[in-house]
Amino acid sequence: MKNRSIILAKRPVGNPKPDDFALHVGELPDIQDSCIQDNEILVKNFAISLDAGFRNWMDEDAGDEVLPAMPLGEPVMGLSLCEVLATKNPEYEVGDKLMARFAWQEYSIGKPGDFIAKLPKDLEFPYSYYLGVLGDTGMSAYFALTEIAPPKEGETVLISAAGGAVGSIAGQIAKIYGARAVGISSSPEKCDFLVNELGYDAAVNRKAPEGQAEAIKAACPDGVDIFLDNVGGETLQAAITNMNHRGRIAMIGAVTHYTAKGAPSAPNNLFELVSKEITAQGFMTHFRHDEYEAVRQQLESWLAEGKLKSFEHKLTGIENVGVAFCQMFEGQNFGKTVVDL
Amino acid sequence: MKNRSIILAKRPVGNPKPDDFALHVGELPDIQDSCIQDNEILVKNFAISLDAGFRNWMDEDAGDEVLPAMPLGEPVMGLSLCEVLATKNPEYEVGDKLMARFAWQEYSIGKPGDFIAKLPKDLEFPYSYYLGVLGDTGMSAYFALTEIAPPKEGETVLISAAGGAVGSIAGQIAKIYGARAVGISSSPEKCDFLVNELGYDAAVNRKAPEGQAEAIKAACPDGVDIFLDNVGGETLQAAITNMNHRGRIAMIGAVTHYTAKGAPSAPNNLFELVSKEITAQGFMTHFRHDEYEAVRQQLESWLAEGKLKSFEHKLTGIENVGVAFCQMFEGQNFGKTVVDL
Repeated sequence: MKNRSIILAKRPVGNPKPDDFALHVGELPDIQDSCIQDNEILVKNFAISLDAGFRNWMDEDAGDEVLPAMPLGEPVMGLSLCEVLATKNPEYEVGDKLMARFAWQEYSIGKPGDFIAKLPKDLEFPYSYYLGVLGDTGMSAYFALTEIAPPKEGETVLISAAGGAVGSIAGQIAKIYGARAVGISSSPEKCDFLVNELGYDAAVNRKAPEGQAEAIKAACPDGVDIFLDNVGGETLQAAITNMNHRGRIAMIGAVTHYTAKGAPSAPNNLFELVSKEITAQGFMTHFRHDEYEAVRQQLESWLAEGKLKSFEHKLTGIENVGVAFCQMFEGQNFGKTVVDL
Repeated sequence: MKNRSIILAKRPVGNPKPDDFALHVGELPDIQDSCIQDNEILVKNFAISLDAGFRNWMDEDAGDEVLPAMPLGEPVMGLSLCEVLATKNPEYEVGDKLMARFAWQEYSIGKPGDFIAKLPKDLEFPYSYYLGVLGDTGMSAYFALTEIAPPKEGETVLISAAGGAVGSIAGQIAKIYGARAVGISSSPEKCDFLVNELGYDAAVNRKAPEGQAEAIKAACPDGVDIFLDNVGGETLQAAITNMNHRGRIAMIGAVTHYTAKGAPSAPNNLFELVSKEITAQGFMTHFRHDEYEAVRQQLESWLAEGKLKSFEHKLTGIENVGVAFCQMFEGQNFGKTVVDL
């Protein structure tokens, strides 16, 4: 048996390209022979989550306390759904289903200290939900609007990358909380998707000829109270320009920073944070694992009540994981991108 | 009698220059004749506070909810200490001493809605303190470390423009709260001043040959927990690079943004706010007038107990107000800049 992986063949410059990644076919460690050591597990990954944020750690100098920089020639780090095939860790049984930070490959070995979250024995929802609306993606949207920048009823919540994985959930949660949800996206088709499928009250095309700041102003006549930022750069500046006094920014991601060639474009008037007394708070689900169980239950309730829907962009086959990752940066995904292996 | 004013003669480009300002001699309205209308007061300004932040509103497109853009040819807006000469407002008596947002001139007329704070009848401290350590300057330092980003004992508080008006107070308050205070300044002389006069634990010269980020790292071996930013731009980025997980930034001002020619330099990796879960909060004393009385009492206690000292850079004469303002941007002030009229 073979273990197929997608390795980081080249360090992406700007947006990742399919040939930054390459398929590598290795030997699968013999399960019977138990390649695993004490407290390790062997898993089969059956679905891969694509998350734009991982682009950050593809740069050579990107290591931090969340992740080391990804090494060239090694399988690309990501998030997967997997099932335990063999275990020498008493916390796990064969057959357990997990959501874990494993690489883009068919089989992985989990060691103590790895990020691994156990899923319920019987999955109530389609498994891909546990990577999206019930995974890190849904958690990001939930934490942003519940802990970081909770809206009051009637406030205007502006969301960038609004039709992407996090944005597609966040817009719906903003509506659940009684806010007015306005989404920023990159094409007229995605703007239609925001309003007609995701229930946003209004949509802004960030390529609008009048510029982002003017387009946001037209869509947010009462100003912006809360901004959920997945993008950074010029979009962040355009949002700040439209923010109300004591507005709050939840900084979820900064795609323009991961992909900048040279110095990324940055907001060019941070004095507005001072004069409007704005609070900007960065956060990562990475540091909130102990809340996952409780948050998942809340998200499951909303799904069961029909208040929340999952939107997915699905591909199939390990050979398409790199392709799927690149499509996100071209705005080709509507909702959460998942690859079934 | 004449009323001498300093008017905005030209809009500054980058750092303000003395010839951006000009002396204008006008007629003093006849006090007996009472030029003032119902609810107005006539005051004599006897000291002018210089605050770098006002540079922001000298640009043509700078108006916001704090102040309109300053008009060319008109007296420059600022903060003054003054005494009531005539009053048609029952809230004020002749002889009342006030701290008010009036222009750079010898006599001003106060109207309802103007920012005016009454001072105690008998000033316990030198009057210039009521513009500095007991004025907006001291309030900014206090709010930053008490409401926006309060340090825990032993945490490292980094402060930019650390020898300036706000920084010279903030460093002392950080020490009162039991934190380790590290200041960033613009020359070896000012760094000496920080450590030897203001009581900072360490000082960083932002022109150090190794770069600001490296110099901060050396001065903050345990990382930065709290950053009080008066500067923005590259200094802000260098601080962020050295910040610890869940660090807090109090954004007090952004001198590099007021004075940028074209797009100001901006932090070029705001993704660090996300990955380190940093909170950045802008604020202005402008929106906290109702707390002035209570805060002034706290600051007065610290002065009386000898825990807090005032450091002032004093000039004399209305003709020197513009000069004094420019000196701040060249880093020539040690502490609070005040001009006696």
